[in-house]
Amino acid sequence: MNPDKYRVKPGGSVNLSDWDTNDDGGLSKDEGRTLTDELQLGLADWQERLNAEGRQSLLIVLQARDAGGKDGTVKHVMGAFNPNGVQIANFKVPTEEERGHDFLWRVHQRAPRAGQIGVFNRSHYEDVLVTRVHSMIDDSTADRRLSHIRHFESLLTDGGTRILKFYLHVSKEEQKARLQDRLDDPAKHWKFNPADLTERARWDEYTRVYQDALTTSTESAPWYVIPADRKWFRNLLISRVVLDTLQGMHPQFPKATFDPKEIEIE
Amino acid sequence: MNPDKYRVKPGGSVNLSDWDTNDDGGLSKDEGRTLTDELQLGLADWQERLNAEGRQSLLIVLQARDAGGKDGTVKHVMGAFNPNGVQIANFKVPTEEERGHDFLWRVHQRAPRAGQIGVFNRSHYEDVLVTRVHSMIDDSTADRRLSHIRHFESLLTDGGTRILKFYLHVSKEEQKARLQDRLDDPAKHWKFNPADLTERARWDEYTRVYQDALTTSTESAPWYVIPADRKWFRNLLISRVVLDTLQGMHPQFPKATFDPKEIEIE
Repeated sequence: MNPDKYRVKPGGSVNLSDWDTNDDGGLSKDEGRTLTDELQLGLADWQERLNAEGRQSLLIVLQARDAGGKDGTVKHVMGAFNPNGVQIANFKVPTEEERGHDFLWRVHQRAPRAGQIGVFNRSHYEDVLVTRVHSMIDDSTADRRLSHIRHFESLLTDGGTRILKFYLHVSKEEQKARLQDRLDDPAKHWKFNPADLTERARWDEYTRVYQDALTTSTESAPWYVIPADRKWFRNLLISRVVLDTLQGMHPQFPKATFDPKEIEIE
Repeated sequence: MNPDKYRVKPGGSVNLSDWDTNDDGGLSKDEGRTLTDELQLGLADWQERLNAEGRQSLLIVLQARDAGGKDGTVKHVMGAFNPNGVQIANFKVPTEEERGHDFLWRVHQRAPRAGQIGVFNRSHYEDVLVTRVHSMIDDSTADRRLSHIRHFESLLTDGGTRILKFYLHVSKEEQKARLQDRLDDPAKHWKFNPADLTERARWDEYTRVYQDALTTSTESAPWYVIPADRKWFRNLLISRVVLDTLQGMHPQFPKATFDPKEIEIE
C-alpha cells in the first residue's frame, strides 16, 4: 500500500470518477485491522514527541458527504491519540456572530497551537461546497474563496503547522446503505437527518464542487482522496498517512535545561 | 471493590493519613487491567448516549501533587472516550488577562456544554492550594474562595452538569520514585521541573490545604480520594466511578422526530 497513490498532485485537476471508493489495498479486513492497530501505537508515540517538543503542530481536515465516515474517523483514528494533545473542532452552520465575520475568522480561532494536533470535522471548505451547491455564492466568489484558503493555509504552514486534508470518498450506493442503517436501528435514529436526502439528491453537483476544492492540494497542505466504502481500509490508510507525516516532521524530545546527575531528591 | 468507600462524605473533615495510597482492592494487576478494559468499553458506549441526548454534561476534576498521575489518568482513562465528546482543559499559571478577573472566570469558560464531558487537569482548586502554600492568600481569603467554589459548582449542577472530583493520593516515597524515573530516562527529562522539588519540600503544608479543599465534597459534586501509588488501580477505580456516574445519569437516545418507515432513500 503506497499512500502517495491517494494524494492529489498539486496543480492538476481531479475527476472523482477516476478514484475508486471500494479499494482495499489488496488486503483482507483482518490484515488491515492488525496493521491499523500497530500504526496506532506509533501515532500515540509520535504525538508525545510532538507535544514534548512544543514547536510544530498538525492540522487534520476531514471532509465528506453525509455518512461518509467523518465521525467514525474521529472515533477510530483520532481516538488513538492522547486526548490531552488533540482538539476536535466541529464546524456547523455558522452562528450569527460568525456570519458577521469573514468565512475564515471562526476557523482561524481553532487552529492548533504548537505541540498540538487539531482535527477539523468539516472545515473552511464547507464555504466552497454546500454554499455553492445551494447557490449562496457564485463561481467568482468561490474562486476568490479558494484563493483565500490557499493563502490562509500557507500562513499556517509558515507558522509551523503541517496540514493534511482528507476527502472520504464513498459511493452513492454505500451512502444509501449507511443512511438506511440509521433508519433501521432505533439507537441510530438521532444520527439521521431527513435533510440529508435533499443533499443526496444533489450528488453530482457536490461532485463538481468537491473536484474544485481538491485543486487546493499543495506539497505542504495536500489533499488525499481516501477510498471510504470500507471503513477498515479508511482507518488504515488515514492512520498510515498521519503516522508518516508525524515521523516526517522529526519532532524531538527537548534537551534538559539541568544536569540530571546533579539533582538529588530528598 | 466498593467505589463508595473512596468517596468523601459531605460535611465531614478529612485526615489524609487515614487514607491508603497503596490500596489494590484485593486484586492482582492482571485482574485489575482486565476489569479496566471491560469498564472502558462501557465508558465509550455511555458517552455516546450522553452525546446523543445532548441535555446533560459531566465534569471530571483531576487534582494531585506533582507526578501524582493526572496526565496518566487523562491518557489511560479519558483515552477510552470518543475524542469528539471530550474537552481537556489544562489550567496553568494564570495569564495576565486571567489574573485581571476573579479566579473562577477562566474556569467557567471551560465548563462542558450539554452532551459533552469536560476534564479539568488541575482546576479552580489550585486557587486554594498552591496559592495558600505560598502565602499568596490568607486563610480568610481561602475560606471565601471555598465558599465561592461551592456556589459555582452548585450553579453547574443546577444547569445539568454532574461533577466528579478526584484527588490522586500518592505517598511521598512513590512521588520520589516517579521524579527519579524522570531524571533517569532522557525521554522523560522534559517532564521534570526542578521547581517540583520546592513543592515537594512543602509536603505537609500541601496535605493540610488539600484536606481543606476536600471538605467541598457534596452529594452532587463529590470528592474521591483515589489510592494512586499503583497506576493500574487508579485507572480501574476512576473508570468504575465514571461509568457508574454516567449510567446513573440515565442518558437516553433521542426519539426520532420523523417516522423511519415513511422514509425512502432513492
